Amino acid sequence: MSKQKKLKPELATGFRDRKGNELILKDRLIEIIKRNFQLYGFEPLETPGFEISENIGKFLPDEDRPMSGVFGFKDENDWISLRYDLTAPLARYVSENFDNLSKPFKRYQVGTVWRNEKSGPGRYREFTQIDADTVGAKNFSADADMCVLLADTLSKCGLNKNEYLIRISNRKLIQGLLEDLKITNVSKKLTVIRAADKMDRVGIAGVKALLSKGRKDKSGDFTKGADLKEDQSEKIINFLTTDNFSKIVSLSSNSTFKEGIDELNKIFVLTKLSQFSDRIMFSPSIVRGIEYYTGAIFEANLFFKVKNKKGEEVEFGSVGGGGRYDDLIARFTQSTYPATGISIGLDRLIYAIDQKKKEKIKEDNPVVICVFDKKQMAQYNKLLLLLRSSNINSEIYCGDGSLKAQMKYADKRNAPAVILYGDNEIKSGTVTIKNLKLGKEASAKIIKREDWTNINKAQELGQKERLGSFQITTKIENLVNEIKKLL
Amino acid sequence: MSKQKKLKPELATGFRDRKGNELILKDRLIEIIKRNFQLYGFEPLETPGFEISENIGKFLPDEDRPMSGVFGFKDENDWISLRYDLTAPLARYVSENFDNLSKPFKRYQVGTVWRNEKSGPGRYREFTQIDADTVGAKNFSADADMCVLLADTLSKCGLNKNEYLIRISNRKLIQGLLEDLKITNVSKKLTVIRAADKMDRVGIAGVKALLSKGRKDKSGDFTKGADLKEDQSEKIINFLTTDNFSKIVSLSSNSTFKEGIDELNKIFVLTKLSQFSDRIMFSPSIVRGIEYYTGAIFEANLFFKVKNKKGEEVEFGSVGGGGRYDDLIARFTQSTYPATGISIGLDRLIYAIDQKKKEKIKEDNPVVICVFDKKQMAQYNKLLLLLRSSNINSEIYCGDGSLKAQMKYADKRNAPAVILYGDNEIKSGTVTIKNLKLGKEASAKIIKREDWTNINKAQELGQKERLGSFQITTKIENLVNEIKKLL
Repeated sequence: MSKQKKLKPELATGFRDRKGNELILKDRLIEIIKRNFQLYGFEPLETPGFEISENIGKFLPDEDRPMSGVFGFKDENDWISLRYDLTAPLARYVSENFDNLSKPFKRYQVGTVWRNEKSGPGRYREFTQIDADTVGAKNFSADADMCVLLADTLSKCGLNKNEYLIRISNRKLIQGLLEDLKITNVSKKLTVIRAADKMDRVGIAGVKALLSKGRKDKSGDFTKGADLKEDQSEKIINFLTTDNFSKIVSLSSNSTFKEGIDELNKIFVLTKLSQFSDRIMFSPSIVRGIEYYTGAIFEANLFFKVKNKKGEEVEFGSVGGGGRYDDLIARFTQSTYPATGISIGLDRLIYAIDQKKKEKIKEDNPVVICVFDKKQMAQYNKLLLLLRSSNINSEIYCGDGSLKAQMKYADKRNAPAVILYGDNEIKSGTVTIKNLKLGKEASAKIIKREDWTNINKAQELGQKERLGSFQITTKIENLVNEIKKLL
Repeated sequence: MSKQKKLKPELATGFRDRKGNELILKDRLIEIIKRNFQLYGFEPLETPGFEISENIGKFLPDEDRPMSGVFGFKDENDWISLRYDLTAPLARYVSENFDNLSKPFKRYQVGTVWRNEKSGPGRYREFTQIDADTVGAKNFSADADMCVLLADTLSKCGLNKNEYLIRISNRKLIQGLLEDLKITNVSKKLTVIRAADKMDRVGIAGVKALLSKGRKDKSGDFTKGADLKEDQSEKIINFLTTDNFSKIVSLSSNSTFKEGIDELNKIFVLTKLSQFSDRIMFSPSIVRGIEYYTGAIFEANLFFKVKNKKGEEVEFGSVGGGGRYDDLIARFTQSTYPATGISIGLDRLIYAIDQKKKEKIKEDNPVVICVFDKKQMAQYNKLLLLLRSSNINSEIYCGDGSLKAQMKYADKRNAPAVILYGDNEIKSGTVTIKNLKLGKEASAKIIKREDWTNINKAQELGQKERLGSFQITTKIENLVNEIKKLL
């Protein structure tokens, strides 16, 4: 006899399954966000998961990590990669189809992205992004729109005004400072930008380390630093920690820096016209790690405490962001196509809303019709048709278990009710409905021992009227109404 | 001056972009299908795109193709693969979580799957499947449920009764025949099954070739055959082409074959109780190429003509199917977990419905507010707020173009209307609405030259009342109502 080696059922590291309430919430948020993006005049687009590797390039903030970047395959002719964001594929799409697109072109996309990075607690290699972008508009009203859209979307997802903030800065500020500091080496500039971007995660000391020799994280991984001189590093830190816009303005007279300030001013004039003017504000520590940004940069931050894996209360932080990327499409074309956009990290948003609300999401579990006798399937099917044609989620138990197993199944499914349709009921044209929802609520309320005793006593004494409400027998024609009442 | 080499904006072969109506239809169908799956008592699940390669195995019908199978990566410890269907990952999920699941476990999943196959016209390497499965039910009512669910779902997606059919057979029939024919080699049996599965695509002669020496397809690719003897091949062909159930019954007295017949009888007793009894019927040519099926197999076929790439009318064919796979989960566990399920090929269904309906899908394009003067942005924003708070998709033009460019943009976006809010309107508290929808309808109707002339004449003569309906000036407080009227 051959005894086959059994496989070990587990997932690859950095991936996870999603189920139940999380998915119900996901569907609901996607619907709200899509609807709001449409309200703002964006049209849908769906690009595939794979792109020719060269076309989407590598603009990720984490190229210094050991297993950095993307999932790539050698295809017949080219290397192809799973997209790491929805922006780089958009650049390919726009340059491929530009003649047929409206100018400007405004699209939204919901899609899975993959990052072949080191995974860790709460850090996955596959997640969902929802993006909105405007291509072909140099006009700063397009940037202002993005900030308003981001604020409005978070508000429509159920966040209160004091729970979120859209922070804006401009990549040109730090680039102007780099010019002031005579840092011209492209790779060094990028290292500074990526270090500055980590303020929220690693704090001032961490950024300081990343601006000088480098930093070792808790896992022992070492990130090489930008090797700046003490005074250079100090100027960057000073900039990142000056939260007052008028003070920032005086930090440099460099022309790139001044351009950045001017653009920000123009954007603020416009955002002030919206209902979300007080939710959109300047913040110099917003830098964004992705390489392709050229102007305004945005980040959506949530301001409420959540528990981390260690049970400590921490600020939730970012759920999305974006910025202007005027040169990305020029990789394909002779002309430049100015563009700006935002991206919402859906998985983080779901987690945030779920933590905040912790409210019972309406579940869609089915009413279960019990099977007493397989010969009566025709009878059970009649009830099933009645329920389903009234749009009530329902099923005939399809396993092979006893009545006890069927009740256990209904309980596990969180079924609102089970239907008992035995010989007596069939003969008398009635049906018995067991209200599992009420049963659960009652057990949830009765915590004291004496209450339990009372229930038991009531049962013993046959005080059916007290418990009666958990189970009723009614005429078949009342079935749908009775079920609707209890749902 | 450095002249950088420009990239060529194109997609990897076998992938495509999706947009506009196709996506609107996709969202709508997903919503209908999910809702119906919930109505039948299935709960949502989402497994990730990647699985450990060994865990999902290779059960694809096309392992004989040159670039067969899956997209796989060498990860830190394991090889990981993008899923090629949603069933193999479900088997991993169920064995990993069995203790916490209801028994039976009924789940649905909407997800992208990838096949690293030779692509061709209409044959893509990435597509969306929607699956429903019941795990832990040996009971044939679970199989019958699948067929009814499939029929009901197609009906709810808008297909008429004469446009679809759920065809059923049982893998045990052909397996019984193989026993009769003394074909015991596992790989040979699989080759026969895969040949038989191709009846719809390659016809009787094609299957005959695949059962004997092999077959060369139009592209020149050769598929090796099963190398059966003439009389063996004849018996298989005879079985596949006998559409009468009572004649099929007499074809073999083999016990596996009889078991298959018996199971089919039990399923038909149950499907006859549903509203879709006449949409579910036996068909021996349903074999299904995937290796893991062990019992009943289903296929959903559409019966209306569509045009192929050559412009020829062809039957649409399959949009999904499934079957019983009692041994798939046993790869992980000592016990067996009987399971059955269906899968809908969403992209093919969208194409079918789109071909059938060709009706105008309600578009959600925005009303465009024109920008005469950037200094008046505050005024335009007031109108925008009025529209958006009434849930009307709308935007202020965000490009840098002239009024002419703005009208061109609105036209390209298929905007229902543009709003003109110039100095005169602002002064008088009015707003001018240009109805682009009506304009388009009028131009669509007027085809004859004399009609065009009349329009021109009317314009020349200043007969504003005829053209007036395309453009109105109204008080601001009427804006929302006027826009609602024209939508």
